[in-house]
Amino acid sequence: MEKVSSLGRHLLVEYYDCDVDVLDSVETIREAMLNAAEMSGATIISDTFHHFSPQGVSGVVVIAESHLAIHTWPEHKFAAVDLFTCGDEVDPWIGFYYLKEVLKSKYFTVMEMRRGLLSAKDGKLLFKPVSSENSEEKKEIYAKDI
Amino acid sequence: MEKVSSLGRHLLVEYYDCDVDVLDSVETIREAMLNAAEMSGATIISDTFHHFSPQGVSGVVVIAESHLAIHTWPEHKFAAVDLFTCGDEVDPWIGFYYLKEVLKSKYFTVMEMRRGLLSAKDGKLLFKPVSSENSEEKKEIYAKDI
Repeated sequence: MEKVSSLGRHLLVEYYDCDVDVLDSVETIREAMLNAAEMSGATIISDTFHHFSPQGVSGVVVIAESHLAIHTWPEHKFAAVDLFTCGDEVDPWIGFYYLKEVLKSKYFTVMEMRRGLLSAKDGKLLFKPVSSENSEEKKEIYAKDI
Repeated sequence: MEKVSSLGRHLLVEYYDCDVDVLDSVETIREAMLNAAEMSGATIISDTFHHFSPQGVSGVVVIAESHLAIHTWPEHKFAAVDLFTCGDEVDPWIGFYYLKEVLKSKYFTVMEMRRGLLSAKDGKLLFKPVSSENSEEKKEIYAKDI
């Protein structure tokens, strides 16, 4: 039977009332995002982080299973975070809770969206290759149906 | 009067039934995403793109006004795209229409979300610095209220 399944899930997070010093430290934010990726079970491919003048940080971690992104506004004690992961080997919620602690966010909103909704035989999306040509080991991981 | 305003808007796009060759070309996808950023009026800070084995491309363009991201699944003729921009000088919809053409997507879904909803005096979020310390010119741009 033809069913609709999804390739991944995407947490859209708004962290409010965060620690201003953390929000403005590109080193702390980068380390936190890389940790969040690793703790969630993701395979890190690359990352890029920048500090803005006079304040604020933007950065992205590309993972084999999609990406994590952050934008901070210390002047508003606010950070917008995206945790987009594919497959059921990765749990973006682990990253969500961890980042909440690091940013010392006092309240937040979070929305989970399904991305890549497709018709699939028996509700199974047959595979998703996640190995990188840039990685030393060219392994292929086959995602289970979500 | 205290009103709620937002720092940015985020288009979550699902492009279906795309051109397989385009979806699998990291050069074409990178060029298209950089063009989309530029055409939308964004200031490009950095980018990172990767081709996966056996197929598929992931990449992100960090812009001064947030980020654009893409993940492609040639095997499903599908691409998931995020166009997250701040301020009213940048129009992510220009990028959306352009990418639809490049990917030759026959149908799509798109959702526009407000990110960074904050209380602001008179509904105005006073400023958002968008200049990068890495840019040659350390200009500060003050975003107008959205």
